[in-house]
Amino acid sequence: MLKVGLLGAGRIGRVHAQAIAAHPYSELSAVSDALPEASARLAEEFGANARQSQEIISDPSINAVLIATPTDTHSDLIEAATQAGKAVLCEKPVDLSLERAFACQSVSKATGQPVMVGFNRRFDPNFAALKAAFEAGEVGKAELLSITSFDPAPPPVSYVKVSGGLFRDMMIHDFDMANFLMGDLPEVISAVGTSVVDPEIGAAGDVDTAVVTMTYADGRIAVIKNSRRAAYGYDQRVELLGSEGMLQAQNILENSVVKSTSNGVTGAKPTYFFLERYMSAYRAEWDAFVRSVNSGSGVPVTLDDGVAALAMAEAATRSAQSGQSMVLAKVLKPVAK
Amino acid sequence: MLKVGLLGAGRIGRVHAQAIAAHPYSELSAVSDALPEASARLAEEFGANARQSQEIISDPSINAVLIATPTDTHSDLIEAATQAGKAVLCEKPVDLSLERAFACQSVSKATGQPVMVGFNRRFDPNFAALKAAFEAGEVGKAELLSITSFDPAPPPVSYVKVSGGLFRDMMIHDFDMANFLMGDLPEVISAVGTSVVDPEIGAAGDVDTAVVTMTYADGRIAVIKNSRRAAYGYDQRVELLGSEGMLQAQNILENSVVKSTSNGVTGAKPTYFFLERYMSAYRAEWDAFVRSVNSGSGVPVTLDDGVAALAMAEAATRSAQSGQSMVLAKVLKPVAK
Amino acid sequence: MLKVGLLGAGRIGRVHAQAIAAHPYSELSAVSDALPEASARLAEEFGANARQSQEIISDPSINAVLIATPTDTHSDLIEAATQAGKAVLCEKPVDLSLERAFACQSVSKATGQPVMVGFNRRFDPNFAALKAAFEAGEVGKAELLSITSFDPAPPPVSYVKVSGGLFRDMMIHDFDMANFLMGDLPEVISAVGTSVVDPEIGAAGDVDTAVVTMTYADGRIAVIKNSRRAAYGYDQRVELLGSEGMLQAQNILENSVVKSTSNGVTGAKPTYFFLERYMSAYRAEWDAFVRSVNSGSGVPVTLDDGVAALAMAEAATRSAQSGQSMVLAKVLKPVAK
Amino acid sequence: MLKVGLLGAGRIGRVHAQAIAAHPYSELSAVSDALPEASARLAEEFGANARQSQEIISDPSINAVLIATPTDTHSDLIEAATQAGKAVLCEKPVDLSLERAFACQSVSKATGQPVMVGFNRRFDPNFAALKAAFEAGEVGKAELLSITSFDPAPPPVSYVKVSGGLFRDMMIHDFDMANFLMGDLPEVISAVGTSVVDPEIGAAGDVDTAVVTMTYADGRIAVIKNSRRAAYGYDQRVELLGSEGMLQAQNILENSVVKSTSNGVTGAKPTYFFLERYMSAYRAEWDAFVRSVNSGSGVPVTLDDGVAALAMAEAATRSAQSGQSMVLAKVLKPVAK
Repeated sequence: MLKVGLLGAGRIGRVHAQAIAAHPYSELSAVSDALPEASARLAEEFGANARQSQEIISDPSINAVLIATPTDTHSDLIEAATQAGKAVLCEKPVDLSLERAFACQSVSKATGQPVMVGFNRRFDPNFAALKAAFEAGEVGKAELLSITSFDPAPPPVSYVKVSGGLFRDMMIHDFDMANFLMGDLPEVISAVGTSVVDPEIGAAGDVDTAVVTMTYADGRIAVIKNSRRAAYGYDQRVELLGSEGMLQAQNILENSVVKSTSNGVTGAKPTYFFLERYMSAYRAEWDAFVRSVNSGSGVPVTLDDGVAALAMAEAATRSAQSGQSMVLAKVLKPVAK
Repeated sequence: MLKVGLLGAGRIGRVHAQAIAAHPYSELSAVSDALPEASARLAEEFGANARQSQEIISDPSINAVLIATPTDTHSDLIEAATQAGKAVLCEKPVDLSLERAFACQSVSKATGQPVMVGFNRRFDPNFAALKAAFEAGEVGKAELLSITSFDPAPPPVSYVKVSGGLFRDMMIHDFDMANFLMGDLPEVISAVGTSVVDPEIGAAGDVDTAVVTMTYADGRIAVIKNSRRAAYGYDQRVELLGSEGMLQAQNILENSVVKSTSNGVTGAKPTYFFLERYMSAYRAEWDAFVRSVNSGSGVPVTLDDGVAALAMAEAATRSAQSGQSMVLAKVLKPVAK
Repeated sequence: MLKVGLLGAGRIGRVHAQAIAAHPYSELSAVSDALPEASARLAEEFGANARQSQEIISDPSINAVLIATPTDTHSDLIEAATQAGKAVLCEKPVDLSLERAFACQSVSKATGQPVMVGFNRRFDPNFAALKAAFEAGEVGKAELLSITSFDPAPPPVSYVKVSGGLFRDMMIHDFDMANFLMGDLPEVISAVGTSVVDPEIGAAGDVDTAVVTMTYADGRIAVIKNSRRAAYGYDQRVELLGSEGMLQAQNILENSVVKSTSNGVTGAKPTYFFLERYMSAYRAEWDAFVRSVNSGSGVPVTLDDGVAALAMAEAATRSAQSGQSMVLAKVLKPVAK
Repeated sequence: MLKVGLLGAGRIGRVHAQAIAAHPYSELSAVSDALPEASARLAEEFGANARQSQEIISDPSINAVLIATPTDTHSDLIEAATQAGKAVLCEKPVDLSLERAFACQSVSKATGQPVMVGFNRRFDPNFAALKAAFEAGEVGKAELLSITSFDPAPPPVSYVKVSGGLFRDMMIHDFDMANFLMGDLPEVISAVGTSVVDPEIGAAGDVDTAVVTMTYADGRIAVIKNSRRAAYGYDQRVELLGSEGMLQAQNILENSVVKSTSNGVTGAKPTYFFLERYMSAYRAEWDAFVRSVNSGSGVPVTLDDGVAALAMAEAATRSAQSGQSMVLAKVLKPVAK
């Protein structure tokens, strides 16, 4: 039984609390949050204790921590927790600063503790089925990957200002999905981004609509499209063209009802947002973490994966600003293994 | 080159005129109609002569006649044309009277001339592809056939009164489709029909909504659903459950555009009515007729097929009126071969 | 907090145990089963006590029982539990004998206790959304309802022999769905059934493929298609033609992956069987029961609903055997209110 | 009646011959081809005369010429025909040399004769319906356009070598589609291309897989994906994200049959290639040309449109080679109006 401390009692912390509590091999022992009411409420709901983060990290009876705090605390907490001998599952992104992430990577690697990064979409059953079909050779060799990822509505500009920008905050999931499906990092990244959805986002120095093109050493190409707004809901699709066919993971709809009238044939919208769309992925992610920690096998999404996706976000950000392609190797400083 | 006389210059006559004129091995020689203006106009448009039906039938230079006149003239014209040595393609139904159809069957068989009945849906590429997949064994043995056939809007009650009723006028196409796909006639037919769409249709002694269930000697079942009204357009679907899977022929849509908004995901309606939906089927039907006449091989839809469908309509009509199942053999008097 | 006794620890009992235990306002207190190991195992898993059915029913601290035992015990247990002052949720069918069900109906009504019958499909979010759209007037007045309900594979013949037959065992869900969607009972029922899937089923006196047509006092028609085998999985569709359009509830697929190759465009199969397909329905069903018992409002699916569906199954069985339509009122003996 | 001379009797020439001959207001008067047998055969088939191109152009009784000759003759023939007072419909691309196209643009503009460029996809009813829905405001303002355009199989390398490269030969259709839908030219174009399908194509100096991203002055973005090979057939999709929703034009399938088996749910592939997919577009294109010439109104796709698409192909080619974004205005030399 894995005793777990949850750092961060916000919206995503609650999702994780449910997964931790429902899992047969883990229990939620303690919850911390900068807002004491938040940790108290969540702890009570799940029969856990509300404590300070440092108490949780230094409690030897706790085996693992799940970090769901604000991004600017991730690196510090990963370092502290691994140095205290904990297994760690940390929400994305590792950090907004690539330099800080590199340092965290060095420190935590030295501890030998497992650190998994919360790229939950790898555990979505649809994307996982697409990858399994690809690896079973059903469409031959990969040639062109397309990822469409649109949010239903833009976040408040106040959030945009501290988010690190669309590439680090939102597209980082798609960078990791590309790495997951392509099984390699791209060589060259080029990006464009505009603020056609909301000029306030542009005024805040960010973009709300972006396209990134990536080329690989063997000639494969990947393209990622992001928008902060899709009026019809959360649009999450992947399309992989191979030498012998194409695999698509299509949207999950609210229900299966179709209405035919003189206005056309209308089906349901995609499920609204990430909590609805990826609930089963969060559960499967936690299950994978528990299994890997319990068995001592490596975690399925590593801190290296988290840093790689961050470096791709960094490269895309610079490309969108400069109008020039970026060679990823120049951004991604190799870490001593 | 098949020289063709077209009897009947109405809406469906015009469809056939186009097919005859466009075919490389047939030419439209003459057109007749009870309304002289109608035949004159159509003849001029296609460079043919407007003549009387009897003149066309007795003209030895004309090889084939296409009968697209009112139903109550079909049997007389089939008899006259075959006795004059013509090949015949006659629109459905053969007659409203099963007795008259039996007589026509005897007379025309004696001439040895080919008579094809215009069950155009057999030539629709989608239904033909379904049948081909079934015959290739893709879903094993047939078990349960479902045919959905809804018109976009009910005809005028004046038409209903002379139509012979829904089973003879509309469902006769579906009876033939069942015969085409099942490769056998049913043993027992039971029908229900109501006038829930338009009480005027009920007052005229007909139904506008009907379901017919048919069982076969080997245990297979077929069910046909008809409605005179589908607000979204012409609904024409077939679904065949076999021992190893299911084949469906779905609707053909007006276009491939899909719109996703906060109201849902909306595609186009089915094509509006039979002229749009089955235009390619009419052309393929004519091509099959020309090829079979030219080659001397048997026509792909025979007068026997036309009489069988009419007998099924008769059985369904009686079942809907009596509330009792009908044994088809008691309705379908066998004709001496 | 509703303290619940679960009678029956088989496959469906386990499904209900999960729903009872997961619900915030109910707890699983005790489990019984004819096989002591089964109740012991399930009780241990959910922290409940394994007890005898009679002990559970006579324990005044238990508020509700969920009956998931073999069908031939349902009526006795409903009577005993309601007489002991319990609220009851009983799996379908109420009984195989319509007479016995009538008697049970009288006895339990006299107690005034709520009895809900487990027609879980009413709580499926897709069928519920279809009904909601219909009631919102989105397709006008109902005219023609079609229900397709195919199992993935036939049960063992040993089960068939004690099942009461396809109409009482399998189609009873569809009869209830028709009642749920049409809001009225049909007047006349006619059925055909054959054993084209497995001759052994026919030899055992049952059918494996059946079509039932039902007409309503106001002219509406409903048709239900059942097969014990669909090679592609559990096929559960509803289609309602109304005066202004059509509503369809389509199948739920295993995942959203689509593969396009030279062989065609292939999506996933429907979810395999009822446990996968209706898991959310079972949870919603339990939630509806808890809410209605706690609030004192009437249960959403009554014992009358259960008896009505059973009477329809009886009528269909007789119709399939006799080849004649059955008037439902002659089968459904009215119970004194 | 428009008397038409057809220059070029190859595969696409035959498609145009059919459209010219079938149109009520045009007739095919003469056909030329570098291969005398080709023009003789096509001329005979359609009852036209086989002549030399120069004869056709200088024949005052001929009103219009359709240029379907090899690309390197297009500019010369456009100039000669317009100077001879003919209306011209010329296949794409205008030329492989942007400089030569500029010169042709000047010469032909001076004659005042209408010159239409054969971007047939604008006349596809599906893309036209998408544009109409967009212009009706159904999804608000445009934000992000995606065009997917995959050929079923790569051309021979011998063709690739003279084709001008993927951007000028294949993607030029998609550049025009972007211009058609966005109603403006992009400001900046960046491209990547590789030869992952066939290394021989790379060895010949071309690419077979490419992605182009374009940004517009007002912040809109368009992305075009091309591949020379899709094992499942001709993949032609457009997707336009707007402020209030998304419009997609999906593929046209070979038929509407769907097969469900234990292997999944399989529908038909897209229609195989451009002749099948765009046959109705070629007919509508010719109709639009005839109507605009007869009415004296401007042609719906101008030589300026042809030159703009060619300039975009030029910019993309340079960007793919240099790895740098290209400003379109620097490539597209403005022509004096």
